[in-house]
Amino acid sequence: MTDRPKLRLLPRHEARVRGGHPWVFSNEIAMDVAARALPPGGLVELEDARGAPLATAYFNPRTLIAARVLGAPGTVVDRAFWHERLAAALHLRERMFDKPFYRLVHAEADRLPALIVDRMGDVLSVQANAAGIDAALDDILGALTDLLKPRAILLRNDSPVRELEGLPQETRVAHGTIDAPVEIEENGCKFLLDLRDGQKTGWFYDQRANRAFVAGFAKNARVLDLYAYAGGFALAAAKAGAREVIAVDRSAGAIEAINANAAANGLKVDAVKAEVFADLERRIGLNETYDVVIVDPPAFIKSKKETASGLRGYAKLAKLAAPLVAPGGILFTASCSHHADLVNFAHAITHGLGQAKRSGRVLQTSGAGPDHPVHPLLPESAYLKALTFQLD
Amino acid sequence: MTDRPKLRLLPRHEARVRGGHPWVFSNEIAMDVAARALPPGGLVELEDARGAPLATAYFNPRTLIAARVLGAPGTVVDRAFWHERLAAALHLRERMFDKPFYRLVHAEADRLPALIVDRMGDVLSVQANAAGIDAALDDILGALTDLLKPRAILLRNDSPVRELEGLPQETRVAHGTIDAPVEIEENGCKFLLDLRDGQKTGWFYDQRANRAFVAGFAKNARVLDLYAYAGGFALAAAKAGAREVIAVDRSAGAIEAINANAAANGLKVDAVKAEVFADLERRIGLNETYDVVIVDPPAFIKSKKETASGLRGYAKLAKLAAPLVAPGGILFTASCSHHADLVNFAHAITHGLGQAKRSGRVLQTSGAGPDHPVHPLLPESAYLKALTFQLD
Repeated sequence: MTDRPKLRLLPRHEARVRGGHPWVFSNEIAMDVAARALPPGGLVELEDARGAPLATAYFNPRTLIAARVLGAPGTVVDRAFWHERLAAALHLRERMFDKPFYRLVHAEADRLPALIVDRMGDVLSVQANAAGIDAALDDILGALTDLLKPRAILLRNDSPVRELEGLPQETRVAHGTIDAPVEIEENGCKFLLDLRDGQKTGWFYDQRANRAFVAGFAKNARVLDLYAYAGGFALAAAKAGAREVIAVDRSAGAIEAINANAAANGLKVDAVKAEVFADLERRIGLNETYDVVIVDPPAFIKSKKETASGLRGYAKLAKLAAPLVAPGGILFTASCSHHADLVNFAHAITHGLGQAKRSGRVLQTSGAGPDHPVHPLLPESAYLKALTFQLD
Repeated sequence: MTDRPKLRLLPRHEARVRGGHPWVFSNEIAMDVAARALPPGGLVELEDARGAPLATAYFNPRTLIAARVLGAPGTVVDRAFWHERLAAALHLRERMFDKPFYRLVHAEADRLPALIVDRMGDVLSVQANAAGIDAALDDILGALTDLLKPRAILLRNDSPVRELEGLPQETRVAHGTIDAPVEIEENGCKFLLDLRDGQKTGWFYDQRANRAFVAGFAKNARVLDLYAYAGGFALAAAKAGAREVIAVDRSAGAIEAINANAAANGLKVDAVKAEVFADLERRIGLNETYDVVIVDPPAFIKSKKETASGLRGYAKLAKLAAPLVAPGGILFTASCSHHADLVNFAHAITHGLGQAKRSGRVLQTSGAGPDHPVHPLLPESAYLKALTFQLD
């Protein structure tokens, strides 16, 4: 501790850290020559403007979120430290899930800022989204290995935020080998994931409970799953006894995955390779209707300045999806855009339904599942918003 | 239709109704002598300022929410009308629930403004919360009888909003007889309800899914259920294998109900008659800790002007409950105050946890179950907010 660099906050900026907030912004720090010269991702001791100790953090002089808190002043940050934090995250998941398929670490909310770990049984997928985590990866992977004896660990370090941190993009197997699709289970279905080709960490565990909720309406239903990815919603609906399931995605890889996953479960899903907006227009032209329509698009809003246009995109999607919902049918809509909050997202969807002259009711407002916890002081990190409607 | 009174909106106030909003406020209506003389609860045809038809509604010249929309202009409102709306609400519940225990009608969201119906198997509990619904009760009860052949219908017309509508308070059995406790089932437990003595409609179905979620943490746990009412959370936890369940409520009736319900399920719950704030102080003094603490108080905020003090109450409750949560334990908090929105409620709870120097994570942000749908244009009617934390 004694030889760890000290980093002083500007006057009157210590309250948030004292209150438990995990972030210090660069403009809150006395950014002198010494501070600027500190290595990205190194450990520091945060002090208030008078020199009183505040917290142990890792620091990157290049980024807006300059310091992320790891613990009380003088926290020893070694392999045992990471082991303890990872063990706590694991213990929480083991209380909530019978099977080893979940997001094991959800960054700040698990007191492991900027670290994401998804667990697919004995295969782990890891994202280090800050220099401080990247610098500690040897210890973190070591602790994960001690804890779970994984067959393989995949580093999915291809997130754009790494560039802001001055980190390279890379995807590689850091431990063991992955020479075949990895099998997970969700809502009673098996899914085969090609972890090296998948988006992000290969599976979106965040929608697990939403998929189960929507599948509750699928019995004997015609189901249309838009932006179907690997078929999480589609297969859950087929498993629940849907009469017909159509899954639409523009990616050939997704269509392959849906077909493989349907076959692996002995289920029938009609996988259609198409761009969703065009596909919606086509189905409207054919006067098609479905008992359940699922609209789970990728983030429409990648940066704050795209918020208004992205919200218009969600509204348009709702307007186009609504005519395809049979009277009394279900419309599930979701947004994983950080920059659209629930109120604005709900307003956009409601506006789109109004334009389509469809009334109805919100049956459920939900977010990501509990393996994606939220830091109480970062409520804006609750990125996933889902609204399930019944339309008249 | 032709002889139904016409009620004209003031200029530029028709857009909301045209957009599907179910309410017209008194200051949006051309409130002339004729309008003021209309009987409370009578049907009217709403028109825009130029006389173009807008909607069929019921009207009360005495209330702030003066008109509530029932349908398109010229809608025939007879027993068949109510039957159709009630049948749609029933059909939705039957798609979501295996057993006949749920909120059957949730007012505006079910296109039955100001009508609440809870179903306890073959017993129904009905609240008519506006003069227009009260005036139609004969047809509504008739339609309910046609639809469900209930053994009994209880009118729980004791809500304070009835006074604003100029309606009397009354609780009476309007159909059949209720001569014994009525049994319902929730989360695998039986509950015996004395419908004539219960609060509101006798059972709070809105927390069903939240009770199940919290019970997921109860195995081998010490559980403290505060404001336990009839034991919905406590029994679900006991059923899930809790080592010990303590249920606190200030009402002697609640303590009796908890004991009776525990006995009926062969479960052990320690029911304690106490005022919650005092009980919390006492347990803190004894250095007690629990693995799961549930805080589900009655509404602290009964009117808008109580919002700030009510939010302070929620913060204080969180501050007092936090020390009782063991490290790694679960804290469930809820508010059913209409006047506290989710952001303000979450802020109050987080503030209370901060005062107690407890960090943690939000595992789930949730509302009422899907038998309490929300009208898309009345998002503020989503009165129930629940946050489930794990504390470090």
